[in-house]
Amino acid sequence: MDPTDYSQVPTPDKCYVDFCLVPVGTGSVSVAQEVAEVQRLLKASGLAHTMHSAGTTVEGSWDEVMKVIGQAHTVVHRTGAVRVQTSMRAGTRTDKVQTAEQKVKRVEEILAKDGS
Amino acid sequence: MDPTDYSQVPTPDKCYVDFCLVPVGTGSVSVAQEVAEVQRLLKASGLAHTMHSAGTTVEGSWDEVMKVIGQAHTVVHRTGAVRVQTSMRAGTRTDKVQTAEQKVKRVEEILAKDGS
Amino acid sequence: MDPTDYSQVPTPDKCYVDFCLVPVGTGSVSVAQEVAEVQRLLKASGLAHTMHSAGTTVEGSWDEVMKVIGQAHTVVHRTGAVRVQTSMRAGTRTDKVQTAEQKVKRVEEILAKDGS
Amino acid sequence: MDPTDYSQVPTPDKCYVDFCLVPVGTGSVSVAQEVAEVQRLLKASGLAHTMHSAGTTVEGSWDEVMKVIGQAHTVVHRTGAVRVQTSMRAGTRTDKVQTAEQKVKRVEEILAKDGS
Repeated sequence: MDPTDYSQVPTPDKCYVDFCLVPVGTGSVSVAQEVAEVQRLLKASGLAHTMHSAGTTVEGSWDEVMKVIGQAHTVVHRTGAVRVQTSMRAGTRTDKVQTAEQKVKRVEEILAKDGS
Repeated sequence: MDPTDYSQVPTPDKCYVDFCLVPVGTGSVSVAQEVAEVQRLLKASGLAHTMHSAGTTVEGSWDEVMKVIGQAHTVVHRTGAVRVQTSMRAGTRTDKVQTAEQKVKRVEEILAKDGS
Repeated sequence: MDPTDYSQVPTPDKCYVDFCLVPVGTGSVSVAQEVAEVQRLLKASGLAHTMHSAGTTVEGSWDEVMKVIGQAHTVVHRTGAVRVQTSMRAGTRTDKVQTAEQKVKRVEEILAKDGS
Repeated sequence: MDPTDYSQVPTPDKCYVDFCLVPVGTGSVSVAQEVAEVQRLLKASGLAHTMHSAGTTVEGSWDEVMKVIGQAHTVVHRTGAVRVQTSMRAGTRTDKVQTAEQKVKRVEEILAKDGS
């Protein structure tokens, strides 16, 4: 591939990203207020998302999802955190669209056969 | 601190670890069978655990939790994966014990006040 | 804050993101070719980046960095991987600009005093 | 497989783990002191390890590596952090032993041919 082409490479249309954001240097141990603020931002984004105890999974185009996680850094900085650190898992696939819900269901179906 | 003391430092009594394991080089796109096998292992371990669409959260002592995730690598290798790659988030705290369920509930309580 | 304001929240001007990309379902154990292709893409982007044995760290604005990692998914899909999974650590700070190099140097300075 | 066998599953003999530890609720933005303390612990462990700007990679048996990362949580708690959060990438393979250094070299060899 001609290296000059790289700027034209598109980002994925669909992805899921699971992220866990940690404010650093706030002096406060609880991050519940910051997590709540991020949940409000996600709701306003209109993207499908699910919170669990170790993070939140968001689904959408790569650009939309990454934009909202970048905005999450900004809103948490605004609450007073000088540093914000986020751990993410991003997944893309070209064969089919599979929602977060379907992924869990698929595994549960396999496990359901164990007892029979 | 005397460097010779480091070998005596204990690992945490309590932790939660959220992990997402990926088999590499299997030629198969679906990881549902491997995830199911890991869920059986977790069930057998007796540790509290919750599966979500982007991983599984396990709670217990550091040594117990890390042992079962290491065993998960082994069982997935046994299904034929030559490489196994896992992304983990581990959290420990010294102030109080808070379960995965309590963490989610705390955020939901804050958000519930938004509408009122 | 008015929820309608969320769409106007900017993403961070500066960030560093360390990422590790894994192609899934290729049937090949080695990921060196895919990693090399991603390095070419990073070079073409003009962003500061450093490869290490467990990933690559990129520095730039949030939007620039996330764009190039999204493009990395696309170029790896084009090599034949049906699924691509990436683990990332993203950090932002509002107090000062600190390069990746400076972070390592700061720790090395502290450790250098140990021997004296 | 008989579920009663799971307790006998071994953990991997060899692995590499790249980790990034974040102290939460310290009121301090800099984590250089905590990172330095963890580096001392790693040195005392005798395990091969390399620090980079976004974490540290450790190599050894699964049990050894996970023990030292658990100890890292403990030493950082002792510096005053009530919460410690770590992001990890763990990799195991059954086909061959490849050091962290060899992985980087393999990619650099492929890239070196680009210019020729």
